[in-house]
Amino acid sequence: MGFMELLDGMPYDELIRDLPEIDLPVPGARGWLLQGEERQMAFFDLPEGGRVPPHSHGAQWGLVIRGEMDLTIAGETRRLGAGDWYHIPADVEHGAVFVTRIQVIDLFADTDRYRIKGAAGE
Amino acid sequence: MGFMELLDGMPYDELIRDLPEIDLPVPGARGWLLQGEERQMAFFDLPEGGRVPPHSHGAQWGLVIRGEMDLTIAGETRRLGAGDWYHIPADVEHGAVFVTRIQVIDLFADTDRYRIKGAAGE
Repeated sequence: MGFMELLDGMPYDELIRDLPEIDLPVPGARGWLLQGEERQMAFFDLPEGGRVPPHSHGAQWGLVIRGEMDLTIAGETRRLGAGDWYHIPADVEHGAVFVTRIQVIDLFADTDRYRIKGAAGE
Repeated sequence: MGFMELLDGMPYDELIRDLPEIDLPVPGARGWLLQGEERQMAFFDLPEGGRVPPHSHGAQWGLVIRGEMDLTIAGETRRLGAGDWYHIPADVEHGAVFVTRIQVIDLFADTDRYRIKGAAGE
């Protein structure tokens, strides 16, 4: 790989795809987790037509790499595409509908926002 | 903040700017570090006209959020802008010239690629 190459339709190389996979409730969705001491960072690949129902948690920063989604933050919906980013304050309700297959990266203030696939339950 | 807002000209909110700052040798350059067990992730804000001389290290994935740079990988130079990404294999020489002020995020296979500002020397 070099410039702008895709692997399985994703702009994610092995540095990302060798990270632990996230246990996600959305059918067809995949995600890889970079676990930091103070943050979680997720690299998502999300299916066309997928939905994330309204929810809230700690603050979140996100960036769309490829594809489109309708993101709703505190009741305001916008269509986001490649290069668009957003900040979701703590405890503010948000949800999304994936207009196309989309790759998004998100940074979470919560260090336990996501769990790894196959990790022991609570 | 919500959609696409800038802070000091950067698409980085406090989730990023509260991370430890990276000790960088390029004048006017700033960076914030997410230290993972298996990777380092850096959020860079780099000045127009800045240069990174050719160098090599472990594998690297990167994405341009805003701005433009001329990136050279193994002797091939391309102008990259918002939404463009790249993979630099391990030990392959690469360097960059920042055509504009630019924000780039990079993921490094090396967990010790960068040090924190003010951290103890070796």
